[in-house]
Amino acid sequence: MTKRCSNKSEFTLKDLADRIGGRVIGDEKISIRGVAGLNEACPGEIAFFANQRYRPLLASTRASALIASEEEPFFKGPVIQVCDPYLAFAKVLEIFYPCLEPATGIHPDAVIHPDAVIAEDASIQAGAFIGRGVRVGSKVHIMSCSVVGEDSVIGDCSLLYPNVTLYPETELGERVIIHAGSVIGSDGFGYARQNGMPYKIPQVGRVVIEDDCEIGANVCIDRGTLGDTRIGKGTKIDNLVQIAHNVVLGPYSVIVSQTGISGSTQVGSGVILAGQTGVAGHIKIGDGVVAAARSGITKDIPQGQTIAGFMAMPANEWRKSEAVYRNLPEMQKRYRELLKRVESLEAVLQAGGHAKGGS
Amino acid sequence: MTKRCSNKSEFTLKDLADRIGGRVIGDEKISIRGVAGLNEACPGEIAFFANQRYRPLLASTRASALIASEEEPFFKGPVIQVCDPYLAFAKVLEIFYPCLEPATGIHPDAVIHPDAVIAEDASIQAGAFIGRGVRVGSKVHIMSCSVVGEDSVIGDCSLLYPNVTLYPETELGERVIIHAGSVIGSDGFGYARQNGMPYKIPQVGRVVIEDDCEIGANVCIDRGTLGDTRIGKGTKIDNLVQIAHNVVLGPYSVIVSQTGISGSTQVGSGVILAGQTGVAGHIKIGDGVVAAARSGITKDIPQGQTIAGFMAMPANEWRKSEAVYRNLPEMQKRYRELLKRVESLEAVLQAGGHAKGGS
Amino acid sequence: MTKRCSNKSEFTLKDLADRIGGRVIGDEKISIRGVAGLNEACPGEIAFFANQRYRPLLASTRASALIASEEEPFFKGPVIQVCDPYLAFAKVLEIFYPCLEPATGIHPDAVIHPDAVIAEDASIQAGAFIGRGVRVGSKVHIMSCSVVGEDSVIGDCSLLYPNVTLYPETELGERVIIHAGSVIGSDGFGYARQNGMPYKIPQVGRVVIEDDCEIGANVCIDRGTLGDTRIGKGTKIDNLVQIAHNVVLGPYSVIVSQTGISGSTQVGSGVILAGQTGVAGHIKIGDGVVAAARSGITKDIPQGQTIAGFMAMPANEWRKSEAVYRNLPEMQKRYRELLKRVESLEAVLQAGGHAKGGS
Repeated sequence: MTKRCSNKSEFTLKDLADRIGGRVIGDEKISIRGVAGLNEACPGEIAFFANQRYRPLLASTRASALIASEEEPFFKGPVIQVCDPYLAFAKVLEIFYPCLEPATGIHPDAVIHPDAVIAEDASIQAGAFIGRGVRVGSKVHIMSCSVVGEDSVIGDCSLLYPNVTLYPETELGERVIIHAGSVIGSDGFGYARQNGMPYKIPQVGRVVIEDDCEIGANVCIDRGTLGDTRIGKGTKIDNLVQIAHNVVLGPYSVIVSQTGISGSTQVGSGVILAGQTGVAGHIKIGDGVVAAARSGITKDIPQGQTIAGFMAMPANEWRKSEAVYRNLPEMQKRYRELLKRVESLEAVLQAGGHAKGGS
Repeated sequence: MTKRCSNKSEFTLKDLADRIGGRVIGDEKISIRGVAGLNEACPGEIAFFANQRYRPLLASTRASALIASEEEPFFKGPVIQVCDPYLAFAKVLEIFYPCLEPATGIHPDAVIHPDAVIAEDASIQAGAFIGRGVRVGSKVHIMSCSVVGEDSVIGDCSLLYPNVTLYPETELGERVIIHAGSVIGSDGFGYARQNGMPYKIPQVGRVVIEDDCEIGANVCIDRGTLGDTRIGKGTKIDNLVQIAHNVVLGPYSVIVSQTGISGSTQVGSGVILAGQTGVAGHIKIGDGVVAAARSGITKDIPQGQTIAGFMAMPANEWRKSEAVYRNLPEMQKRYRELLKRVESLEAVLQAGGHAKGGS
Repeated sequence: MTKRCSNKSEFTLKDLADRIGGRVIGDEKISIRGVAGLNEACPGEIAFFANQRYRPLLASTRASALIASEEEPFFKGPVIQVCDPYLAFAKVLEIFYPCLEPATGIHPDAVIHPDAVIAEDASIQAGAFIGRGVRVGSKVHIMSCSVVGEDSVIGDCSLLYPNVTLYPETELGERVIIHAGSVIGSDGFGYARQNGMPYKIPQVGRVVIEDDCEIGANVCIDRGTLGDTRIGKGTKIDNLVQIAHNVVLGPYSVIVSQTGISGSTQVGSGVILAGQTGVAGHIKIGDGVVAAARSGITKDIPQGQTIAGFMAMPANEWRKSEAVYRNLPEMQKRYRELLKRVESLEAVLQAGGHAKGGS
């Protein structure tokens, strides 16, 4: 959020509603000077309600107004009604915390190779290192201790937070954000065997990250062995994710923290992989697939499927298996009881046909 | 351990015992000049015994003395008897490896914004970058390639190892240690949806890390969306841990490596989450909860519970389910045998009531 | 791949075959000017075939020649026949992308302590920081924003990518590669308890990484508490792996991404731990053990075993348990049916001995 700052403005509720495409229910003239969570809001601030879990807070919040998808009886103040309160919340935050223009210019303590081409209105902080042949676009912001390897290309309006490493020949589109500590373009983990010992396979491909991607902190995206590792337009990757060599991620996908995707796997568009998911190599995950947290995906998944578990299966089947799993000790006990009843029956029949309690 | 160095001193066993609050059994006048593991110790060194697994080493160790909770028949030398040998070991290490005073002062190759306020006795190494409005307390040590974002506050005696990134407005208490490569205050992973595409929610909160916390290497702690992500006093976080936006960790908790905690979850005091644990968002983990390695915690956990498994359940129940799981193929086989016996019974009754082997 | 660059040379197929120890089947005089994947290859390039999954591409590839283990009927051009196409592929890549000699010398913007000893032919980039007492060997390459702590030793021909941190006293052998963002020698995660609060145990050991190891990006290897954490000769570690204090890894092992190994565990030689594996502390993993992805290893594993699952068991047993797990809801249903049949039998016997459908 380096580039955001509270602007300490005030708006009428009507103003806010117009800007976010909502409709006021109640007093539209009240003045709003900030946005906060239901629990933390003070009078004069607007809160939002999108998660049913927080319904009990509606009665006690001190917020002066609410963003919600419908009138909320437990909230006493006026409401901005919107289709999607979470999206409206994002837009209200943009209003109260506008982007700051980054200080333009190259700090004298940045080290830029003379053969790099830097747009006039790019910002490069002290202690950033730009290699030979790099091209840096307009309004790009590169922060301290980020290192851009030779022949890399950074598209307009992209932002590298501190301590980012781009290996040589990395290509970033426009409006790409890379958070601190991430490493883009490191060697893929590829070894042949010679005399039983690992033998390094040169990794001579690249990483291409398309427009509008956001990459979290301490992420690793390996370069292709040959050819590219590619992150599709608008895809978002959370912290500590591993993307192996030659993976291709489709556009508008969401990869949550600590997930790992093995080499040469192809992921479709609009896919969601929740936290700590693992994906095997050389498989295809179809468009729109949703994987629950900690899924372990070992084979192709057809488009649109919701999956869970390790090894991943359709989520509804996984829930059933998991429910029985939790009940296994009881199931084992009942099996043993049943075994005894069968033994009793066998004994009875052996003895001539009448049940114990029988005549 | 940058700040520690063997002091090459010698102590009598009595001296050491007094300093760590123990009692000597045996010759208290022998001279000890170092501390080592049971296996590596040389004559003149003291070892410690806290893990039963290493009992066989007691007979063979060359250590001249032992720290233990009671007399150990297999060890022939004198013993310092203490309640907690592991704690006593820590204290003996402090005696033989005292903290070095860091070189005070600001290296000329550090880049400090003129509006930052740095205590006179702080140390800032070459290649550290301190932003506008930052306040750095007394005896703070900031190492090379660490970047402190604008308006951050670092309390007295805190230590940033190299390549740490603090995003703007981060607040560290006193005696906080952050290991290399960690990223504090990166944007939370929050997106609304607009036309099916992820739409970034500005992350305008902060991270607050209270006194006496230690954060491992390559950890990620995201800033709050609104409000703070907070790490309670004295809590210890291991390497490669992910803490999402608006998580609140209570004091004196221990979060082991590669664990991930999702957004807005509240963790109590004295909690232990063992390695590779995953925690869902928006839940509460009570005080004193202990989660076994690789637990997957999907719902509120009452205080004091010991849990395991995914989805996490009480550890003793998980052990039982897991034991049956391992036996499932056998269980399936026995089920099939039982089925055949029932079929036989049915056939017998169908045929007139007498068992095969019957009269 | 900083040190590699396509050399834009051409070779006859015979030349290539001789250099990689293969035999040409077909026209050995054709000229090859590059190497590419089956799908991406253009005329004039050679491709390789090692993974059966890609067999369908053999008919459609535009490659002019193929590296394979035998003649491939679906591929129309000449073939270099080799025992191990994957190893041959590595060697062909080395031919077309030879190592560049790194620019020798110390950049004026590197900060080197006057008491460090740097070989004349080492390369140290701008913004690298070398501490007091460090020794840097011949042909070593240390890139921007890497920080080498005091008294560390870096053997000949080793390579540190950007933003690497070596804590004090770290020892690297020869030809060691460490990728960006990795942290070597951070404090082990060791705490005693005092009054219920974690009490830090000083971590005064070292990390030793032997010759020919490669360490991925954003890896963490903690120093020993006392004594060394040790990575054996030729072992390869992928991105985001955690190696705790006093772990000893044998030679020529392969540790895949996001795996974590807990303290004091000993891993043999030639071991493979696939991605997201977790290993408990204080255990021994024998030579040649192979652990499937996401194994959770909780106890000693004898040499040569292939294991899987959490808690890890022999892989073939795990597959059986897992197969039944996936079928548990069906199994439960069939159990209930069987229960009813037994109840019917009991009722029949109770009633006098004849089955319902009986005479």
